[in-house]
Amino acid sequence: MKLLFLNGPNLNLLGTREPDIYGHESLNDIVDVVRERATQSGMVILDFQSNHEGGLIDFIHEHASSADGMIINPGALTHYSIALRDAITATGIATVEVHLSNIHHREPFRHHSVIAPVAIGQIAGFGSYGYVMAVDWFSDMHQGSKKP
Amino acid sequence: MKLLFLNGPNLNLLGTREPDIYGHESLNDIVDVVRERATQSGMVILDFQSNHEGGLIDFIHEHASSADGMIINPGALTHYSIALRDAITATGIATVEVHLSNIHHREPFRHHSVIAPVAIGQIAGFGSYGYVMAVDWFSDMHQGSKKP
Amino acid sequence: MKLLFLNGPNLNLLGTREPDIYGHESLNDIVDVVRERATQSGMVILDFQSNHEGGLIDFIHEHASSADGMIINPGALTHYSIALRDAITATGIATVEVHLSNIHHREPFRHHSVIAPVAIGQIAGFGSYGYVMAVDWFSDMHQGSKKP
Amino acid sequence: MKLLFLNGPNLNLLGTREPDIYGHESLNDIVDVVRERATQSGMVILDFQSNHEGGLIDFIHEHASSADGMIINPGALTHYSIALRDAITATGIATVEVHLSNIHHREPFRHHSVIAPVAIGQIAGFGSYGYVMAVDWFSDMHQGSKKP
Amino acid sequence: MKLLFLNGPNLNLLGTREPDIYGHESLNDIVDVVRERATQSGMVILDFQSNHEGGLIDFIHEHASSADGMIINPGALTHYSIALRDAITATGIATVEVHLSNIHHREPFRHHSVIAPVAIGQIAGFGSYGYVMAVDWFSDMHQGSKKP
Amino acid sequence: MKLLFLNGPNLNLLGTREPDIYGHESLNDIVDVVRERATQSGMVILDFQSNHEGGLIDFIHEHASSADGMIINPGALTHYSIALRDAITATGIATVEVHLSNIHHREPFRHHSVIAPVAIGQIAGFGSYGYVMAVDWFSDMHQGSKKP
Amino acid sequence: MKLLFLNGPNLNLLGTREPDIYGHESLNDIVDVVRERATQSGMVILDFQSNHEGGLIDFIHEHASSADGMIINPGALTHYSIALRDAITATGIATVEVHLSNIHHREPFRHHSVIAPVAIGQIAGFGSYGYVMAVDWFSDMHQGSKKP
Amino acid sequence: MKLLFLNGPNLNLLGTREPDIYGHESLNDIVDVVRERATQSGMVILDFQSNHEGGLIDFIHEHASSADGMIINPGALTHYSIALRDAITATGIATVEVHLSNIHHREPFRHHSVIAPVAIGQIAGFGSYGYVMAVDWFSDMHQGSKKP
Amino acid sequence: MKLLFLNGPNLNLLGTREPDIYGHESLNDIVDVVRERATQSGMVILDFQSNHEGGLIDFIHEHASSADGMIINPGALTHYSIALRDAITATGIATVEVHLSNIHHREPFRHHSVIAPVAIGQIAGFGSYGYVMAVDWFSDMHQGSKKP
Amino acid sequence: MKLLFLNGPNLNLLGTREPDIYGHESLNDIVDVVRERATQSGMVILDFQSNHEGGLIDFIHEHASSADGMIINPGALTHYSIALRDAITATGIATVEVHLSNIHHREPFRHHSVIAPVAIGQIAGFGSYGYVMAVDWFSDMHQGSKKP
Amino acid sequence: MKLLFLNGPNLNLLGTREPDIYGHESLNDIVDVVRERATQSGMVILDFQSNHEGGLIDFIHEHASSADGMIINPGALTHYSIALRDAITATGIATVEVHLSNIHHREPFRHHSVIAPVAIGQIAGFGSYGYVMAVDWFSDMHQGSKKP
Amino acid sequence: MKLLFLNGPNLNLLGTREPDIYGHESLNDIVDVVRERATQSGMVILDFQSNHEGGLIDFIHEHASSADGMIINPGALTHYSIALRDAITATGIATVEVHLSNIHHREPFRHHSVIAPVAIGQIAGFGSYGYVMAVDWFSDMHQGSKKP
Repeated sequence: MKLLFLNGPNLNLLGTREPDIYGHESLNDIVDVVRERATQSGMVILDFQSNHEGGLIDFIHEHASSADGMIINPGALTHYSIALRDAITATGIATVEVHLSNIHHREPFRHHSVIAPVAIGQIAGFGSYGYVMAVDWFSDMHQGSKKP
Repeated sequence: MKLLFLNGPNLNLLGTREPDIYGHESLNDIVDVVRERATQSGMVILDFQSNHEGGLIDFIHEHASSADGMIINPGALTHYSIALRDAITATGIATVEVHLSNIHHREPFRHHSVIAPVAIGQIAGFGSYGYVMAVDWFSDMHQGSKKP
Repeated sequence: MKLLFLNGPNLNLLGTREPDIYGHESLNDIVDVVRERATQSGMVILDFQSNHEGGLIDFIHEHASSADGMIINPGALTHYSIALRDAITATGIATVEVHLSNIHHREPFRHHSVIAPVAIGQIAGFGSYGYVMAVDWFSDMHQGSKKP
Repeated sequence: MKLLFLNGPNLNLLGTREPDIYGHESLNDIVDVVRERATQSGMVILDFQSNHEGGLIDFIHEHASSADGMIINPGALTHYSIALRDAITATGIATVEVHLSNIHHREPFRHHSVIAPVAIGQIAGFGSYGYVMAVDWFSDMHQGSKKP
Repeated sequence: MKLLFLNGPNLNLLGTREPDIYGHESLNDIVDVVRERATQSGMVILDFQSNHEGGLIDFIHEHASSADGMIINPGALTHYSIALRDAITATGIATVEVHLSNIHHREPFRHHSVIAPVAIGQIAGFGSYGYVMAVDWFSDMHQGSKKP
Repeated sequence: MKLLFLNGPNLNLLGTREPDIYGHESLNDIVDVVRERATQSGMVILDFQSNHEGGLIDFIHEHASSADGMIINPGALTHYSIALRDAITATGIATVEVHLSNIHHREPFRHHSVIAPVAIGQIAGFGSYGYVMAVDWFSDMHQGSKKP
Repeated sequence: MKLLFLNGPNLNLLGTREPDIYGHESLNDIVDVVRERATQSGMVILDFQSNHEGGLIDFIHEHASSADGMIINPGALTHYSIALRDAITATGIATVEVHLSNIHHREPFRHHSVIAPVAIGQIAGFGSYGYVMAVDWFSDMHQGSKKP
Repeated sequence: MKLLFLNGPNLNLLGTREPDIYGHESLNDIVDVVRERATQSGMVILDFQSNHEGGLIDFIHEHASSADGMIINPGALTHYSIALRDAITATGIATVEVHLSNIHHREPFRHHSVIAPVAIGQIAGFGSYGYVMAVDWFSDMHQGSKKP
Repeated sequence: MKLLFLNGPNLNLLGTREPDIYGHESLNDIVDVVRERATQSGMVILDFQSNHEGGLIDFIHEHASSADGMIINPGALTHYSIALRDAITATGIATVEVHLSNIHHREPFRHHSVIAPVAIGQIAGFGSYGYVMAVDWFSDMHQGSKKP
Repeated sequence: MKLLFLNGPNLNLLGTREPDIYGHESLNDIVDVVRERATQSGMVILDFQSNHEGGLIDFIHEHASSADGMIINPGALTHYSIALRDAITATGIATVEVHLSNIHHREPFRHHSVIAPVAIGQIAGFGSYGYVMAVDWFSDMHQGSKKP
Repeated sequence: MKLLFLNGPNLNLLGTREPDIYGHESLNDIVDVVRERATQSGMVILDFQSNHEGGLIDFIHEHASSADGMIINPGALTHYSIALRDAITATGIATVEVHLSNIHHREPFRHHSVIAPVAIGQIAGFGSYGYVMAVDWFSDMHQGSKKP
Repeated sequence: MKLLFLNGPNLNLLGTREPDIYGHESLNDIVDVVRERATQSGMVILDFQSNHEGGLIDFIHEHASSADGMIINPGALTHYSIALRDAITATGIATVEVHLSNIHHREPFRHHSVIAPVAIGQIAGFGSYGYVMAVDWFSDMHQGSKKP
């Protein structure tokens, strides 16, 4: 089973900036944790980060047909990128949306996700552990114990 | 470590009604799965279901001080029970909000949660597996490997 | 044929308070009229009044499977009780919503019903005669002369 | 006792189009049922259908002073014809508003009626039986057993 | 100088209904007063009343090119008839909008006029004397003492 | 009969600025015309202009009890001075609101008047002739030919 | 193949008023062009213009069953005539909505069409050539080269 | 003179939780202060706290007829319990609404009270002293020195 | 202890106008009552009324540094005077906002106060007794029995 | 005559995904059809597709000065790309906006186009034939038979 | 070249209150800095501060014709004083709007300026240096090196 | 001291298009002026223009740590690029937002900036001189004479 793991704008800065808020883990550290968890369940992770909406869409177009699902943290694009939403709908890839922070605590414009209505589910507020939850869900699905 | 596991209005009907939508698991079946998962991590589950907003609040008041956290699916109260929200704030109990369905797919009035801004995080759309994710997060926290 | 007849918050005060507005009939008087009308059509009425949202939901859960339909005046809960709405949807009980006054004459917050979208129909403005209309409709349905 | 029975735009198509939704009864069939019910209670029905807002208003002006009440299904005019509303207010005719479908199930712009605030009451969702309910209410009023 | 004098839906009922509110003057009485005032200033009045939006538009189309201006009380059409507004714009006829009552006292939906933005001015709240004010303005304009 | 004639902020600039738009008449010229018209009908005018909301209110308080009515162009205060509105309500003075331009043509924030709901009527769009219309209405009222 | 060609309020004025904006073509000229284009594709045009909402609905009712489609410019009714929309839905006639001007350039209230959600498509901004586009589409459909 | 003293959801936690914010007084301490103040003025206090909307309504129904007034802090129900509002209206009990904190400082959804429009007045922001103010007002009223 | 006692626009009219609504007490009478109550608690009152927003601000600037608190009824300025609000914030004076009427009963635009978020608390609906409540609160604070 | 033919995000997937909805034509197939139609009218097509907002803007900047017009389907960027809109305004290129589906049938956020107010016109709902309509319009313009 | 330098409500308190936020400079200190900067460029400053909207308008009326421009910090009047806006429009004085703080950081009601649409430009967030920027711009304009 | 100088979408067209509106200066000309001004104050400018949101974010990520501040004109991205806003917040770079035109004069959707709340300040309406103002502010800060 192969999972795409996408991170949107500014998530490349994790760990190097504002460690008090976002912790000392870099995005690379997180990818390593996620890959290890996936490997334990026999899954392969293909990760990608971009600050470009178009780059994220290109990546989804290229890899969706060979993947079984996608874990995505769209960053700020969560709130306005209908194009990213349409890429998910058009490719039909099973998608789990993850946010590090609890977006419902923050500015009102961050409460709404244009991605959520086309995702299987949304996980928000558990830091990088949210990605692990998503991996576990795909693993659980893969083992046939649950059906979405 | 002790966790409260609360379910709000109409969730007692799980499994007995609309099995095509909600599956054949009853709430009791789900509580058993959640308890088993918690036990594996050395945690105790205290579960409660009520169709009464006041009953849920009474339960939180009574048990919050002896518990380490709460997993709650507030059902329809998610969208208007400021009193339930205030019970979480007043007792200060660490709370994870779980929804079986992806509430962002559904009618617009279900997109907004008055509970989410006072919860640690929200998990929506993964069926009863969402409760398992929440248990795992408390377990992971308990083992000191993550800090919220 | 068995019909549930539910009345929500404050409707127990009918007849004893504000007779100029609501008339001299008590809720008991009205239940008697409704039961008599139902009996004439060979139907049985099971009535219940509560000022508790949770109490109304509990009652619906308990009796929906043995009833053929429900006549409900949700009182003020009409405007915000999504939990009551979900109880109707979850049990699938055929429901007619009745209001004594024409709620469209009153304060704007009373113009909107969260119950109506899951009811078969709504009757408002005809005083206690509105309950009789609802009984007659169930009776007419029962006799097979109409299909909803 | 004489009742006006008005039907607004597109209701002349009943029975001839979309029978799966609206049934096989034509408007003529319905008028016959309504008239028969009224006759049984000693009431006379004067019916009129028009696709013209102005035509409906002219009819009300001409006949309101000789009638005791009106049953009206304003069709789509329900949602914007303030002129029709003013005709009801200006003539002071006792009016019952009926809708075949439950307008609260449908598109949001159909949830609001500009007519309802000047009607005695509103009946929605019971198909053509809603007209019968309205006749029965006028009959009940006529017999002095109820006061609006 | 020739003026069109148009009255919209329900204004034909003036004087015959609700005399406490609208006075005992019929629309004919008012037209006589308006015509007399106009005649004193050497102006001719062509009056028309209709409950049909389309009828008012037809009348404007037919007579606008031979008239110097129009006094119109659009009745309830004031609030939604963009078609009537377009008839004024398309013919380019100089238009004064008059309302008998002070529409700003009444229901919020009566505060907004879709006609006003294409009229020269609006007079509201002075009863039938508002029409006289409008005649006087055209007369004053005609005598060259003012320019709009 | 004595009329207050009030003009609000910036109206003192009439005639000296932007003559292309507002014409060459100064406020003094307009007051002269209004006074002359009033004198012809046996009425006395007491005029006042201020750029101060408080100044206008003080003036109304001081003179309302000795006056029979007020013609007011509140200028920009039309749109937000609830204090000016309350001065009219508190003194109970019969008030006609006049605007030189058709405020419904202009920016949306100029469409709404907080004064209009407590005035007898509103006249907008007829330039300084609007004041004459208001004088004539008071004159007509004074002569007993009309009742507000 | 037979097409209805309907034009709503004020479109009868085309060519005779405001030629700078709408050009020198009268509605008759346009109908001739449309008919000629249709004839070339073996289609018949039945045209109708009315300033009456009810008249347009009557026409659709009368001719929809014998026609294969409709090209309609509803004029100002575009923005509020739910009754016209219901006529299209009720008869099920395949409808193309055309506007001469680009309604998205104009006042905000013209940006929204209540007709568009029940039409196959909308063409706006190409002057009378928009009708030709619509004819060509029906022709192309007729020849089986495309399916909507 | 007898006063009901009601406290809504979560107010039972006063003094035991978040003492930095709400002080060290428990609800019992506050009730003692309020009762002492009332006793000094010859008034009797009947106090009740519940986390159940229905429980508060039941209490009002049971005791309103034997009481002269009510002091209520509805807690979070302030913002959505139309049923509680209707209980006040239906029993006609003279009601003073008190909030410990200044609700206008807090989240926007706490600025609006559905109870206030049916209360005599509202006191917010003075901590538990607000209840004393309410007692004093009833006392002052009782002594005939003021009329509401 | 010294308290400023400010009253905004139109409050100088108390007692002389609309006695049925506002009672027969003049503002002077009320100031006397307030001063007497304050004197009993060893406090000094400095009172001021103005119909000028700027006058009220000037007064606050001049006297805030020598005062211990302020009781203010901003009249209509409550709803829009951000400048008055800023004067309270800028001087840091402890402020209690009082309204004679229950502003939540009245027009919607009176429900919102721009002053309340910077005041300690708000008292509304108790007539002139509200000022006494405010004096008592300052007195109670002064005696150290309470802390805000 | 040279036309730019731009397609925005996700339109590269046409034909390869969701053929039931979007048909079996790939974007290349459509470009061929459009080019052939253009060639017949002596026009040249320069086509470009990108999932990058910036890429589309770069392309417009580079080619606008050498082109006579543009046909664009901005995909999801239709609803939020003010930058794309500004590129059209800044280069002044004559632009026709085309959508394959009738965007007015779909989610409310797809009803609004930020591009439409700066385009000549909009065509929506005719599948890939909409592009042909746009080509024909440019051709018709080119032949001088029409003027925009 | 002569510049008016106006400061609105509460700005007279600068330096004497809240020095942590607004710094230790008094308004006099700032006026000195601004005057010095202006003098260096051969410009004259005429400064004025008032807490009265009317006072600011009077000052503009009196001095606009003899001045070449105005630098204004309207304080809280920024957000509601349409009268101040109209004074700028009516006198046609070239106006630069300056705010000490970044109003876009603050409460939502401070994000909107009714003055900005009639100013040349707006400078916000640079403390008293913002006034210097404005002086420099007028100086630069004066020297003919730029044109607005 | 080193400053980043960023320009967003379509600003590369300055000077070559619409010279009547935007003047004859190209972006290169402006960069030269800004660089010269900065050099005079001992500051270095690193400039960048892109039509790609992602390109601007990449540039900020790469250069923020080596720069002392940023002057940015985000072009149309001002109004929707939350990702650009987050790049400013995440890197913590001191940012001044500049707009050539007064965005408050233009379409309502241009009045709101998502960037402004995370910038030090905003300068709008002074053409390219606005960039010079921003340079001067950084220079003034650098010389220690002011603190933000």
